[in-house]
Formats: sequence, structure tokens, C-alpha cells
Amino acid sequence: MIKKKHNQNQSKSGSKTRDLYSLASELGLKFNKTSYLETAFIHSSFRNENPEYKEDNERLEFLGDSVLGLVVAKYLYRTNPSASEGELSRQKATLVSTAVLNGLSEKLGLSPFVLLGKGEGQGGAQKKLGANLFESLVGAIYLDQGMEAAEKFILKHLIDYIKTSDKIKEATDYKSTLQEICQKKFKLLPTYRLLKETGPDHEKTFYVSVSIRDKYTAEGKGKNKKFAEQDAAKQLLKVLKIKV
Amino acid sequence: MIKKKHNQNQSKSGSKTRDLYSLASELGLKFNKTSYLETAFIHSSFRNENPEYKEDNERLEFLGDSVLGLVVAKYLYRTNPSASEGELSRQKATLVSTAVLNGLSEKLGLSPFVLLGKGEGQGGAQKKLGANLFESLVGAIYLDQGMEAAEKFILKHLIDYIKTSDKIKEATDYKSTLQEICQKKFKLLPTYRLLKETGPDHEKTFYVSVSIRDKYTAEGKGKNKKFAEQDAAKQLLKVLKIKV
Repeated sequence: MIKKKHNQNQSKSGSKTRDLYSLASELGLKFNKTSYLETAFIHSSFRNENPEYKEDNERLEFLGDSVLGLVVAKYLYRTNPSASEGELSRQKATLVSTAVLNGLSEKLGLSPFVLLGKGEGQGGAQKKLGANLFESLVGAIYLDQGMEAAEKFILKHLIDYIKTSDKIKEATDYKSTLQEICQKKFKLLPTYRLLKETGPDHEKTFYVSVSIRDKYTAEGKGKNKKFAEQDAAKQLLKVLKIKV
Repeated sequence: MIKKKHNQNQSKSGSKTRDLYSLASELGLKFNKTSYLETAFIHSSFRNENPEYKEDNERLEFLGDSVLGLVVAKYLYRTNPSASEGELSRQKATLVSTAVLNGLSEKLGLSPFVLLGKGEGQGGAQKKLGANLFESLVGAIYLDQGMEAAEKFILKHLIDYIKTSDKIKEATDYKSTLQEICQKKFKLLPTYRLLKETGPDHEKTFYVSVSIRDKYTAEGKGKNKKFAEQDAAKQLLKVLKIKV
């Protein structure tokens, strides 16, 4: 269990930096160069306001994104020996989705340690903050300790997380799965129809049907059209007896 | 210089397989398990027609894509210590673009060795064939010999190639670069205007202008609107003295 320390809008980074070492230790990480760890938690908005900081975490995030991509690809390749390229790609997209990485980041308690500029962090501006922090931390581990350590860290936390998390369901793209299967088996695309909308404006429920050549059909609902279509696709996959 | 052997529409794979070993040898590759090398050159259309083949190259391509992504990201991170995340991402997108990888694949002479199903390989159906083969070969090297060997192969051929190739120009996205700079410096988007079209229908030339708050402006031309806009963006970047 990771002790969380909530953002106290500190303008100086002193105590956050010290706490960061506790976090790393709780995550089983020991850095040779602690500057990598520190940089992983410097948001560009903080650096903009504090020009004495020479780097923020965006370059580490760029690198970490590719490290994560390879580790997940290798893991899926090895653990799904009979999955097609399409299935592997879909699973990969889910595992590295913002929803999953944000959730994992929250579980690991990363966000409270980030140094943000004043005025950042409110509202929806930082929707990808958690996911980006996970990636910059992975980039830092990779640079500091190499591929093997980064792989170990990712597999330990990500694979453990997806086995227990609901986020994986949110991030699963049933529509794309159905579309691919449809094209392969029936040489056409599934047809979605909006059936009705109920409820007041701020709390609507959308009902959608999906069908394949009027032979297979299913219905779904959700708080917007997209979610309703995803639900309908999921139901139709069940009808077709396809496990996602 | 790699000896090319053109596709002879062989239905059996015997002589192609033997030639494949010469190709590998010319590329400086020695496989422990030659089945990886062979699988890298089996297209799904061939496997569909020859069910005795248990695997095609699509899973290797999935893996190779991520190996390539990390190698290129690491290379760019290391060689561009002052580049922003946005610049690194743009450069990466160019280096792993279909245009660049198709060109590299052609230079290495990979396509003539692929086993295709009958009726494949004509027309535009196989636009990504070369790029996909490079990725599946990278995946095969990675599985057979590990990351270091894959990295060495990619850097040797890809980096050498981009220094001399025109493809890199084709794949450079001037519009995105201009847009990003514009948003950062001027907090607005550049405005594109179609000025005129000349020439007969099958051989039109489009003329486009681009401007930033009517303060900076440039013109470009091309065989379609998209190319003309890219050219205009390129010219305006020159005006702004930004090197891409």
C-alpha cells in the first residue's frame, strides 16, 4: 500500500523531492542518478514558471512511451501465442490507454508528487497527467537502470493492475473488435441505429441497436451515443459468442 | 550493394527460401533459428492459400513495430538533447513512416523475397508491403538475437538511409510543425487559402497561401491541395527562419 501525500500547492519543491524518494522506495525503485527521478515529476507548467529548472518530464515521457510500447508488445506476443496481429494490437491499445495508465498511476500514488505550475491541476486540463507521469517514470527507470529494470517495473505493476481493474473494461474497444470480425466474416460493416434518448438533458440515457445484415442484432445503452454503441457492440459480440 | 531477385510468382517456396539466406548474409544477419527469418517473409495471403504454413509474418511485424519505435525514440532522445517532446515525436513519426520504411525496404531489396498469395502484389493493394517486411524482419532479429542486435541492424540501415534519401522530405510534415510553432508563439492557427488551380483535370497545379495574422505570409504549390499546403507551410517556416 502506497502512502499518498496530497498536492499542497507548494511553490518550492523541497519537501516534495524528499517525499519522492520515499515513493520510489515504496515502489521498489533505487535510482543511481536521482536527477532522473526528480525530472520525471517536473511538469512543463512548473518549469515554465521556474526557469532555474533546466528540464521537465516531457522528453522522459516521449522515451517512456516507447519503452512501455515494447514491453507490452513483447508480453502480449509471448502470452498469446495464437492471437492474431489484430487481436494483439487491440489488446496493446487497451493496456497503454490513457484510462488504464491514469488508473494505474492513481493506484501507485504518482500524481500528488508532481510539481505543477500555479493554476494547473484544476478542472479537466490535466486529463492525461497520471498516464504521462507513469510514462515519464518508466523513461527515467530505463535511462537510469536499463531495459530489464524498466520491463520488470512495468510488468509488476501494469499486469497486476489490469487483472483487478475496472478500467480495462472502460478502455476495451468493442466497436473496433466487432468491426474487424464483421469485415472478416461477413465482408461488411455493422449498422448502428439510435433508438431513443430518455431522461433530462443533464442525465440522458441513449439506446442504440447494432445489426449485421439484420441477421444478428443487439441493443445497448449508455450516457452518450458512443458508450451506447460500445455497449451494443459488446452485446452483439456475446450473441456471436466472441470473447474479448 | 544487395543483389535483388525479382518476384517470379513461384507457388513453391523452395528456391526463395534458399535465396533468403543469401539476402540475410548480405545484410550481415546470421540467424540461430532460421524459422524466424523464413516466417518474416511469409505474407498472410500466402499462408491463407498454403495451410501447411502455420504462421505468417503479421505477429512478427506487430513486435518489430514496437522494437523499431523504441530504437528510434532512444536514438532521437540521445542525438537531440535540446529537442522538445513535440519535435522528437515529429521526427519519430517521419522516421517510422510508411514512405521511409518502404524506401528503406526497397533499398535493402526485401520485397522480392516475400511469399505472396496468387493475385496479390498487383496494383495498390500492397502499399505497405515493404514497410511491413522491414518490421517483421526486425521482429525476427529481436526474437532470435535480442535487443542489441535489432538496434544495431536498425541504426545501421535506417540512419544511413535517411541521410541520403528523398523519402524523408516526402514524409516531413511541415504543416504540423508550423501549426505547433504558431500555437506556441502566436496562440493561434495559421490560415490557409486556396488561391487558384491551373492546368487540365489530370494535371492540375494548386496554389495556396498561408498566413499568420496577415503579418507573416507565404505561398506554395503542388499537384493537390494537401501538397500545396505542405509547400506553403515549408515556405512560411523559411520566412520564420525555422529549420525542420
